[in-house]
Amino acid sequence: MSGDLLVVGSVAIDSVETPFGREDEAVGGSALYFTAAASLFAPVRLVAVVGEDFPEERVAFLAERDVDLSGLVRRPGRTFRWKGRYGFDLNEAHTLETHLNVFEDFAPNLDPAHRACPYVFLANIDPDLQQRVLDQVESPRLVALDTMNFWIEGKRRSLLEAIERVDLVVLNEAEARMLADEANLVRAAQRILAWGPRGVVVKRGEYGAIYFADGHVFAAPAYPLEQVFDPTGAGDTFAGGMMGYLANTGNLDPDNLRRAIVFGAAMASFNVEDFSFRRLERLTYPEVAERFRRFKALTHFEADV
Amino acid sequence: MSGDLLVVGSVAIDSVETPFGREDEAVGGSALYFTAAASLFAPVRLVAVVGEDFPEERVAFLAERDVDLSGLVRRPGRTFRWKGRYGFDLNEAHTLETHLNVFEDFAPNLDPAHRACPYVFLANIDPDLQQRVLDQVESPRLVALDTMNFWIEGKRRSLLEAIERVDLVVLNEAEARMLADEANLVRAAQRILAWGPRGVVVKRGEYGAIYFADGHVFAAPAYPLEQVFDPTGAGDTFAGGMMGYLANTGNLDPDNLRRAIVFGAAMASFNVEDFSFRRLERLTYPEVAERFRRFKALTHFEADV
Repeated sequence: MSGDLLVVGSVAIDSVETPFGREDEAVGGSALYFTAAASLFAPVRLVAVVGEDFPEERVAFLAERDVDLSGLVRRPGRTFRWKGRYGFDLNEAHTLETHLNVFEDFAPNLDPAHRACPYVFLANIDPDLQQRVLDQVESPRLVALDTMNFWIEGKRRSLLEAIERVDLVVLNEAEARMLADEANLVRAAQRILAWGPRGVVVKRGEYGAIYFADGHVFAAPAYPLEQVFDPTGAGDTFAGGMMGYLANTGNLDPDNLRRAIVFGAAMASFNVEDFSFRRLERLTYPEVAERFRRFKALTHFEADV
Repeated sequence: MSGDLLVVGSVAIDSVETPFGREDEAVGGSALYFTAAASLFAPVRLVAVVGEDFPEERVAFLAERDVDLSGLVRRPGRTFRWKGRYGFDLNEAHTLETHLNVFEDFAPNLDPAHRACPYVFLANIDPDLQQRVLDQVESPRLVALDTMNFWIEGKRRSLLEAIERVDLVVLNEAEARMLADEANLVRAAQRILAWGPRGVVVKRGEYGAIYFADGHVFAAPAYPLEQVFDPTGAGDTFAGGMMGYLANTGNLDPDNLRRAIVFGAAMASFNVEDFSFRRLERLTYPEVAERFRRFKALTHFEADV
């Protein structure tokens, strides 16, 4: 059963420097990257907060993709700002500045249309807020949650409560190890699964993603690119592709989840080709479908010989 | 056309420390790890040098696998010794001591049976010696070469000459970047391919391997293991599985090369399960075939839906 996809997270104005250039005051944030990706697959409803300085016109393309922006609330003050730098190791962001601004008082209140969404993505925000969303939604078919080291260290208890209540945990490798307090990734994933979720998706940057569920493992590489300009938002774009595909197909079977992960990896591979979500903005579904087929060519081998 | 597989490289006595234990005076070296893996697939002929202190009985199992050890020459003096340590990041070895000993004067002279081998692996040794082997072999069908940062920095010119003369270059990610002087892996591989080889296999430790050829890319993950005891020799074991499978099947088509890479990854995954090459020693072909099938299950997704 396909259906609408709710995302609750941050919308930010980022200043990013990579070895290949810089971009100041770019629109970003976990929920926007997610939405820019997922909206190519399914009807998305976005819940987030911005300040008076937010350039609305930068998200006009989302409205054209039938994204419900009614939950993108504007508050007095400035938009959440993040400033970061990447070295040649594009897997690691160095945060230079974080200003929460209006995001500090973010307390998502869902409208009936939001509450009824069968697919829900809790982007990387305070686990208290993630739980606040969980309290409001009405029996969704699939809820996925992302998080980060800041919450793993600072709000562990609330985060574990949130994790118990979701179906999928999506996080990067270092976060998985930190959350489970276990250096071996397989055992880290098993520990997280034991807390309740039926799947753990571990994002590995330029090495792709690996999915763990009970008795089930699936590894997808990242797409080998000749040029990576800006990895900001790649993880949220991955989640957007994955959840968008699941919401569109309405099929939660393991086989379809594998395809969803590959669509996530495909979306992430586009996102890093340009700064901000410019590449996602001009991306078309046929391009995505073509890259999905290339992932097949990239990973396929005949086992019956 | 299947056939014998010649390997020329080092045989060493290693002392290794990992977070999970330590092993002193373990038999190792690139050529031995390679042979321990490849001998499950094809007839291997080993050319290397050891000192008077070498415990012959530790390689008796290779004779049982019909490995030709006539080229394993014993010289007065001590065997090449390496001492290293791994932290929790098992992808990176920290070398504590290296004593070349008898390996310092290693100058491979091939017998007629060695020269006639259709499959050749030049393990990580001085590129001058790799070229010396290339001067002696008679029109092999496939020659692969491994190397390391030490030769890339110290003998670059000779190494580039050797690379021009081989079919496949096998090296790890950091080495590929250093060799090509290019941070982006895709472009690094393209640069190496432009020097002459028809393929480049980049080993990525716990992230698997990625293969580049003209208009062709194949990515294989590493097998997710709950316990990794000792990564020493994983790269050579990978090469042994890959080259052994190619020598056994005699099929150099791109599709078969993909399978060969997966067999390489399978062999590497066994090797890290125990110290030294103990796991390879007791390994059977049915176990390898079973893990190969698990790689298929690990990576497969349906693209036609």
